[in-house]
Order: sequence, then structure tokens, then C-alpha cells
Amino acid sequence: MTRARLKSSVTKAVIAAAGYGTRFLPATKNQPKEMLPIIDKPIIQYLVEEAVASGIKDIIIVTRAGQTTLEDHFDSHVELEHLLRFQGKEKYLREIQEIPQLANIAYVRQKKHLPYGNATPLLCAAPLIKDDESFVYMFGDDLVQAKVPAVKQLIDIYEKHHPAAVLAVQEVPWEVVDRYGTVHYKRGTRINQIDRLVEKAKPEDAPSNMAQFGRFVFSYKVIETLRKTPTGKDNELWVADTLNRLAKKETVIAQPIAGKWLTTGDPLNYLKATVEYALKRPDLAEDFKSYLKSLNL
Amino acid sequence: MTRARLKSSVTKAVIAAAGYGTRFLPATKNQPKEMLPIIDKPIIQYLVEEAVASGIKDIIIVTRAGQTTLEDHFDSHVELEHLLRFQGKEKYLREIQEIPQLANIAYVRQKKHLPYGNATPLLCAAPLIKDDESFVYMFGDDLVQAKVPAVKQLIDIYEKHHPAAVLAVQEVPWEVVDRYGTVHYKRGTRINQIDRLVEKAKPEDAPSNMAQFGRFVFSYKVIETLRKTPTGKDNELWVADTLNRLAKKETVIAQPIAGKWLTTGDPLNYLKATVEYALKRPDLAEDFKSYLKSLNL
Repeated sequence: MTRARLKSSVTKAVIAAAGYGTRFLPATKNQPKEMLPIIDKPIIQYLVEEAVASGIKDIIIVTRAGQTTLEDHFDSHVELEHLLRFQGKEKYLREIQEIPQLANIAYVRQKKHLPYGNATPLLCAAPLIKDDESFVYMFGDDLVQAKVPAVKQLIDIYEKHHPAAVLAVQEVPWEVVDRYGTVHYKRGTRINQIDRLVEKAKPEDAPSNMAQFGRFVFSYKVIETLRKTPTGKDNELWVADTLNRLAKKETVIAQPIAGKWLTTGDPLNYLKATVEYALKRPDLAEDFKSYLKSLNL
Repeated sequence: MTRARLKSSVTKAVIAAAGYGTRFLPATKNQPKEMLPIIDKPIIQYLVEEAVASGIKDIIIVTRAGQTTLEDHFDSHVELEHLLRFQGKEKYLREIQEIPQLANIAYVRQKKHLPYGNATPLLCAAPLIKDDESFVYMFGDDLVQAKVPAVKQLIDIYEKHHPAAVLAVQEVPWEVVDRYGTVHYKRGTRINQIDRLVEKAKPEDAPSNMAQFGRFVFSYKVIETLRKTPTGKDNELWVADTLNRLAKKETVIAQPIAGKWLTTGDPLNYLKATVEYALKRPDLAEDFKSYLKSLNL
């Protein structure tokens, strides 16, 4: 194996965190949804940790005005470090000191003259991406519980086949496919290649029950294609529209992820994600499970 | 009934929110524990709403450096209001506009030259309290689910008997009394008068299984007594020490609260409180309950 193959070619990630999180008002009145905690850690930190555990070194977080708590979170907090040292709380001290060392993080503001849409953050981050560079794209409200981090699973596929894009998918029940974007696999390929992605199709029209979620590895071709993609539904810029254009000429892979995708995009799913994480926390699982049982629901 | 009896004499509340929330690190690295949400609303807002529903007009929140998100939360957010109006999200718009109108809120920084302790915020708020004024004191990590707000229950008792102090208590199982401060009721009184409060006593030594929690109505005598009370355990300033001094000469009432006290002071109890509130939310209860059942714990 050559040195080139040992070294990952994907070391940069873009995280979209510029949404208003309206569904979490009033909690998101003055802070981004991505700063809401799952138990005792902000959602955005789970995302950064997943990226870092997948070999990512440089992270671009696309934000908006009023999100300085997010930027402060990944910065050192010297006064708090002094306090924890003084109180002898070494475990917390190390944890706090490690946060700013996780990755090189740059913040880019989403430009307000651009249309809304889940592809808009990519346009804002593009000036920080080299034109031969492949990169990870993550939505700020999707979490994945997995032995091998979801981003790592996608990078492995990307490096094996060098497609134009890889997107993460997970099987969902047929009766709810209309909540998701589902993929149509191309016949006769062995690499999960797709020829299209259909948004919120009814069960009878959906091309599969494999739903796309917020984890991607993109070649620079995605940015080039996005720049030529007009706004679509609701006058927004969509990743799906871009990938559908791209899939006409290039290889786009929809990779089923080993693990459990949890969205935190609305209060009910945020509650579910909180419970799922609590039940996997060694320090909390047993007591929390006893409590839930005691509710006799 | 005279006009004087109709009008509540207690219209001011002090909320202690200056803790470091170490047990919630890293989520509390750059924001106060009281800004953690229960589902989609910060804990501090539940407290302010409880006070307001009890007739409180003026609230003093005792904070520390790095808590500007808390101050911003109760301020208007004009840009967000414009966005919600533009998007036609009237329900959220009204909700956001009502927050700054809930009460007159003043912020006082906890002075760092003073000793730590759960009575220290009182010393910091004292200059904003008149020397004949009675007021509510609330700990930022206790929530109470109750038909009649817990603060209102205490004010009613205070106005009936005009003691020097009323504190909220709730029955807890005998085997865990050592986690709480429990009260010793004075014999032969019909008004739940106590002669002392004992911190973390073993079941065999505890004076009762009625545990004190973070809701009080205080006359100004509490501040006068606090100023003469030396630091106690761990060199901190304790409400319990102050009340024990006071109870030697004055009437102190420990009032059992109708309702459910929930603490949010550590991750396990924060999780439990989140579940309790979710199961009472009309928009979430049914789906969340189905989900919990589906876990087959």
C-alpha cells in the first residue's frame, strides 16, 4: 500500500448551522438550535467530534448573526479552566481544554442576499474550499449513533470509488417515505449508484424506502454544479436538485449507513434523540432506565 | 374584604442563577445552566413564568460574567420578530414578543469577593430590596409542576400568617432524606412552624422526611439575619444557617407544596424533568409516550 492510499484525501468538513430553529422557540431565541444540548453536550459538538473521529482536520461552520455562543463554545475559556483547576475538577478541566484542540474551525456567515435552502451554506463555504478538494458536508440537526462514525463510512466509500458525491441513506418504513428524500438506485451497478433523489414522494411513487439524511462527501464538482443550479421548490436552493443534475453525468452513490440516524430537527425527535443518548451513557443508562420503567406507561 | 387584603404584598422575586453548572459541562461552558432547555424553553423562563403567574412584577436575577444569553433572552429580538412576521409564524411571533413583557427584570452580578453559597445571591440582590419589603427567593435549578404555582402557594401562606419566612417542602422517601435539608416541626402549632432545618441528616437522625427546596418567601428580617450569619459548611453562606438563626426568635413556616418538585441540578434529574414536562405537553405527550413504550424497557 502506498503512502498516498494510507493518507485520507478528505480532511475538511462544512457544517450547516445557520438555521433559525423556529420550531424550538423560545429556546432558540438568542442561540442556534445546534447549541441545544443532548443531555450535557451541545448538538454541534457531537457533530464536530464525529468529523474529527473520521479524520477531519479543518471544519467550516456556516453560521448567522447572533450565534457567538457557538463560536465561544469551541474557544478556550481561561477563567473556567482556572476555576476547575482550583476546585480540583480534573476530568472537567481536561474535557474543556480539549474542545478548542478538536479541529481548526473557521466560521463563515451565511449571506443573507442569497436564497434560503439546504445548499446555500455550501455556496458560503465554497471560497474556503480548493477547486480540486473533496470535503464532507453535514447538516447541523442530524446525529448518527454508530460504531464507525457515519462520516468515516462515507469517506471510506468515497476513497474506494472516487465518485462525484456520496450521500448517506437509511432504510425507513414505507408508510413514512413521504417525509424524506428517497433515492432511485441505478440498475446493474454494484456500488449503490443512484440516478435520482425524489423529495417527499408518496409511498406509491417513491423510488425506494432508502431515505437520504445530512451526511455527504462531495467532490468539487458538486460546488460547480450547485453554481449552475437554479432555485427549486419554495424558491430555495436544494442539495437534492444539485445531486439530481450531477447524477445525470457523474457517479453519485447513496450509501446505507451502519448505525442509527437520529434527527433533532423538531421537539419530538429531539426528545427521542435525548432518550437514545441517555440510554447509551454508562453513567446514566441504568438509573434512567429504572426511572422510565417506574413511569408504568 | 378590604382593598389592602386583595392586593398582594409580595411583588418582587430574587432568582439565584449565578452557579457554574459544572455538572453540565461542556454544555454550560459558555452559558448558564439556567439557559438549558426543558424541551424548547430555557429553565429560567419556566421560573420567571411561575413567579409572574403568582403575582410577581419585579424580578432580580443574580448572574455572573458570561451569562449575556440569559439577559438577551428576556430582551426583544427585533430581527427575529421581523422574520417571524414575514414568514407568517404568528404563534411564535406572539410568544417571542411576550417574553420581554413578562416582568421588570433587573440583573445583579454575584460579587466574587463574597463567599460562595446558596445565600450569597441574596446579599447581592439586597440593595434592590426595601427594608420593609417581603420578597420571593427561588433557586434556578428547581422546577415545580403544580396547578397553583408553588410561589403563589407560599405567598398565600405568608399573607395569612405573616411569619418571618416561609419555605417550600415536599415529602421524600425516608431512605433518601440524607440528600436533602429536612425540617423539624415545632410541637403544638397549627401553622407548620419549624424550629430547625437539618442538612443531609441520615434517616435515623433526620427530624422528618419533609425536604426543603428552592422556593421561599422572606421578610426583610431574613436579610438582616443573613448579614449576621457567618459562613458554615465548606466555608459557604447557607440559607439553612440563616433560617435556623431566625427560627430561634421568629416564626418560620415550612409549607408542603401541592404539586411535583423537579430538580434539574444534575444530568439524571434534568433528564427526568424533561420527560415529565414532555408527558404533560398536549402537542407532544401522545407521540412521546408511544415512543417510550416502543422501547420495551
